Formats: sequence, structure tokens, C-alpha cells
Amino acid sequence: MTEISKYGEFGLIKHLTKDLKHVQPSTKKGVGDDCAVMDFGSKRVLMTTDMLLEGIHFNLEYVPLKHLGYKAAVVNFSDIYAMNGTPTQITVSLGISKRFSVEDIEALYSGIRLACERYNVDLVGGDTCSSMTGLTISITCLGVAAAKDIVYRNGAKLNDLICVSGNLGTAYMGLQLLERELMVHRSTNYGTNLSPSTGETEGAFEGKEYLLERQLKPEARRDILEALRKAGVKPTAMMDVSDGLSSELLHICSQSGVGCCVYEDKLPIDYEAAALAEEMNLNIVTCALNGGEDYELLFTCSINDYEKLIPIDDLYIIGHITKPEYGCNLIGRNGEEIGLKAQGFNAFEN
Amino acid sequence: MTEISKYGEFGLIKHLTKDLKHVQPSTKKGVGDDCAVMDFGSKRVLMTTDMLLEGIHFNLEYVPLKHLGYKAAVVNFSDIYAMNGTPTQITVSLGISKRFSVEDIEALYSGIRLACERYNVDLVGGDTCSSMTGLTISITCLGVAAAKDIVYRNGAKLNDLICVSGNLGTAYMGLQLLERELMVHRSTNYGTNLSPSTGETEGAFEGKEYLLERQLKPEARRDILEALRKAGVKPTAMMDVSDGLSSELLHICSQSGVGCCVYEDKLPIDYEAAALAEEMNLNIVTCALNGGEDYELLFTCSINDYEKLIPIDDLYIIGHITKPEYGCNLIGRNGEEIGLKAQGFNAFEN
Repeated sequence: MTEISKYGEFGLIKHLTKDLKHVQPSTKKGVGDDCAVMDFGSKRVLMTTDMLLEGIHFNLEYVPLKHLGYKAAVVNFSDIYAMNGTPTQITVSLGISKRFSVEDIEALYSGIRLACERYNVDLVGGDTCSSMTGLTISITCLGVAAAKDIVYRNGAKLNDLICVSGNLGTAYMGLQLLERELMVHRSTNYGTNLSPSTGETEGAFEGKEYLLERQLKPEARRDILEALRKAGVKPTAMMDVSDGLSSELLHICSQSGVGCCVYEDKLPIDYEAAALAEEMNLNIVTCALNGGEDYELLFTCSINDYEKLIPIDDLYIIGHITKPEYGCNLIGRNGEEIGLKAQGFNAFEN
Repeated sequence: MTEISKYGEFGLIKHLTKDLKHVQPSTKKGVGDDCAVMDFGSKRVLMTTDMLLEGIHFNLEYVPLKHLGYKAAVVNFSDIYAMNGTPTQITVSLGISKRFSVEDIEALYSGIRLACERYNVDLVGGDTCSSMTGLTISITCLGVAAAKDIVYRNGAKLNDLICVSGNLGTAYMGLQLLERELMVHRSTNYGTNLSPSTGETEGAFEGKEYLLERQLKPEARRDILEALRKAGVKPTAMMDVSDGLSSELLHICSQSGVGCCVYEDKLPIDYEAAALAEEMNLNIVTCALNGGEDYELLFTCSINDYEKLIPIDDLYIIGHITKPEYGCNLIGRNGEEIGLKAQGFNAFEN
């Protein structure tokens, strides 16, 4: 008997799908990217799915249900954008235990629907059933893209620039803040719920609203894709940062057959996040590399596009693609070379 | 605070989605049928999703994981066939607790993959994560159909014939048999697992293999669609029987704005199932009406197609469509009229 933790999440998926063969001519890309890609005769159809389980992916002691719904939808949209596509439809499946009321599920749905409205996505179906314990959310998203526009993970070339949008590690610091306040709250208000919205812990969250928002209500970066389109830049490889920069860079490099070199002093880090990390005795660079849930876009593009990238707001060039022999390394502030490791959240080691 | 059981599964979905608006021109049909329907420029794309939760939808004390995987995939294919489409791709999301080994998940996947091979469907993606308790399976299936071929639930017309494939109530009797043997087994072998495959309860299952197969390893009726196509018959309304004949007939009638009349003595009932029902003091007609999980096709078609339907194997005409004022009724063996009710499994009343 083999314990699942031996494989880890990616290892298990790889193991289970290693000799999958496709028989449908419409299947253009299966397991191994942000989305599957299908050709049904005109535009390509993209498909992605995410499952969120209570106690594993979210803690309802501090996550409001409306925010949870919003985030559950947006993380799927982010996967479609990460292929340079446009999300169009979702289905929502819910497993709901007796603890939840109709009003709770309405709140969850209101978040999902708000996300759909903001991103012009239609909610077209789903499944709702009771569960023995807790809340389970499974969302599948379809999107479209012209075949020539799709960006996969495997297209990074030697000397390509490595770019990332927004900032990294901030969602993780938001989570740390929420977890810390929960502990404080638990020790002083046994049995009641913490709610960032009621103001009872206002002092602790004051001035840190941005960190909370990054954790509780992330946005997908369609604005970056629009800016790239306007600038006439097509990335060579792309994915969204859900598990952490290190983990995602390793995916792009292994699938593209290249190495990479990123610079510590180029990593975009939010000031508030850095301050909180210092206060909590955490290394913000480690958080930026491995924190995950930032849902920023990570992509590579030709060095010839350098001039076109510079004017784009909120976009950072953090390194470049190397020969595979070089491996995947971070160059520290003092010039030291540190091998990147996928230390991101391993779902099976908790 | 409103308890979810007040709405029930269908009521809750209806409540949550009642004022949904679509903004994507590609969305042709949203919530309310077996699948959503999208138009991406050539063939229509169908999409359906099903979530299965341990302790609610399956009991691993007697359901082998390979069978569970097979069934989880096939019930999605069945939804695509129920729109007269062809399933093409699935994504599989799993939530797995520590109790499960890699070998367990391999067994589950082998069933999913076997179903994919048999039905020519590609497994193109998914999500795998740990869960706090039990096993959660969420599968989303895409399919294709020419726009003119799609059959919705809302097309039944006055005087149309009501047809059903296979037989009804058999999967439910298979479940009763498994539950009964589990009780016997629990009282004599406390702490061990019942397995229909090990032969230890062989006596009890002998001669009843068909009932077990209907429950543990259902098939989707693509053969019926092929026969209808060959015969030149296009149903006016169609769905698969997952919740029970009564429940499905009420869906078709309410969406089509019609009533229906079905005859008790026309309901296709398996001999073994009837014998077991008698032995267990159950009314087989009630099982046929409300048992669910048969995954047979229920459809209506024009009375002009009557001659074409007769030669088709394993297909039964059980009644006809009436004016809406008549309601939905079963005519008993003695001519009595009994109103149909959706007594099918209510997921929120357990």
C-alpha cells in the first residue's frame, strides 16, 4: 500500500495520467497545462476545473461565503486567462452539509454571480447535493480562444524574458494575518466566529485591507492580457501563479525543456506584505517564491519584445530563460545562486 | 434562517438560479436540462457535471472503487446522450482523505479510464486534492451535437408517445440487495468489509448478478440513440432516468407545458427485480417509478413514428402526452388514476 503523500498532488496526477491516450480528434491538449484545449470546428474551446474543500482550501471562521464564491469562480477564470483565452461559461457543483442554511448558500452564490458579472461569464449549470460534512465546491469553466492565440506552458525559449504581473506573496501574508487574528480571537472569544467585515477586530486589520483582499478576493489579470495584446506582445509560455512562483517556474521550465534564472531584487513585493512578514518573523522572499494564491500571470516572451513591455503598468521582468543544464535558480541579493524548489503547498502533506 | 431541506435539491437550484441572465452569445441553454448548450461556431458543445460524495451517493463498504469510477464517468455520458449528443471529453476532480492509498485511487481511475475507452471519451484534465473526510468525485463532461439534432426536455407535444428503454427499478433493487447483505454481514463479521467480488457472500448474490450490475456498473444507452437514428426517429423531448421515472416525467411535462398518462402494466420491469421486491416486501411499481439510477433514456416522440419504434429492441411505449389540465398520472392495473409525485431520492432529507 502506497501512501498518497509519497507522490504529492502533481506526482499523483502525473502517475494516474501518464499513459493516457486521446481518441477524439477534437482533443488538442489534455492534462498538463492550465486548461485542456478542444477544437470543435472554429474557435478553440478551453476547459479547466477546480475543487475547493472546507478545512483544506478555506476556513469559514474567517472567510465570508460571498468572498469564497467570488474567489472560487475567479481562480477558474484565471486558468483560462493563463492560456490567453476568454472565460465564457461555468458550471458549479456544491456539496452542502446540514450546518448550512439557504441564506448561506445564497451568499456563496451571490459571490459566484458577482464574479460572473464582472468577467462576463455565464453560469450554465451544475449539481447541488447534501454532504456528510462541510462544504465542497467544484467549478468547471469553459473559455474560447483563436488557435493562434493560445499560449501553453511549453513554449519558453533560450534567452526569453521572464515576467510576472502584480506582486507575489501578498495573498499568503493575508492568510497569515487572518490565521493570526483567528488564534487571538479563539483565545479570547471561545465559540464565536471571526469576521473581517464586522469590525470587531478592526484594529488588527487596519491598514492591511489590501493583504486581506489579495487573500479573500483575488482578481484574474485580464487587464495584463489586454495590455499585452495592445502592445503586440504574445508570450511564448504562460501560467497563473496559484501554487507559488517557484513551483510555476519549474513547470514552465520542465515542459519547455529549459532552465531559468530569476533575481531576488527583481521580485515584485508589496510594502505592506513585507512589513507584516518582518513583524511575524517570516522571510518575505520565501513567501513570494512559495506562498501561492496570488493568481498573477507568469509568462515568458522574446527579448525582442523588451521595449514593448516596459510601458506596461504593473508588469515586472524578473529574469530570463537559460539552457536546461543551468537548472532553475534564484540569484540572491549578494549574487549567490539558490536552486528553486517546489515548496508550494503540498495538499497531501497536511 | 431557512433550512435547505425546505427547498430540496431541485428547489434550491431553481431558487439560486431563478433570475440568471446570460451575456455570452455562445450560451444557447443554461440551467434546467441534462446539459448546458454552447455555440462556438460550428457544432454545438454540450456540458454537464456531477458530484458524488462518499456516504451520500456511495458506500465503499460494498462499492468497489473501480466500479465507482466507471459509474461516475458513465452517468455523465448518459447526460450527454440524453440531449442526443456524443460525449467527447471529461475532467475529473477528486478530494481524497488520508484513508485512501495510491492503489485505491488507481483502482478508481482504472474504472474511469475503462468507461472512457468504451465510450470513446478523452480524460483531459482535473484537480486532485486532499480532503478532511472521505472521497469526493466531481466529473464534468463535454459533448458535441449538430444544432438540429439536440433534444431538450421542453419539446413534448400533445398526443406524443412516451417511451423508455431497458427496465426501471432494477438499479434500486440492486442497491436494496447490497444494503441487505451489508446488514447481514455487519452483524456476523463486525469490522470487515463486504465485497461482492470476493465470493464470501456468494450465496446471497447468486442469480442476482444482473441487479448488482445495474446498480454498480450502469451503462449509458447510446445504442438506443443509434437505433432511433437508423429508424429515422427524432424524439421531441428526452432525458435520462437518474432520479426516477416520476421525477423525470414531471420535469418533461412542466418544461413542455403538457400533462402525461402512463400505464402501470406497460412499465418495463425485470423479472429478477420483481422477485426480489416480493421477497423484500417492496412494491416493484413504486421502485420503478421512484427508484432512480437506472440511466435509461426517457423520451417522447410523435405518434406518427409509432411504426418505426416497434422494431427497436429494448424500447417500451409506456404512455402518451396529454393536455396540461390532465396533470401527470399513472393508470393502475385496475384502471385507477394515480397522480405522479417526485418521490425520488431527496438529497437534503437524509
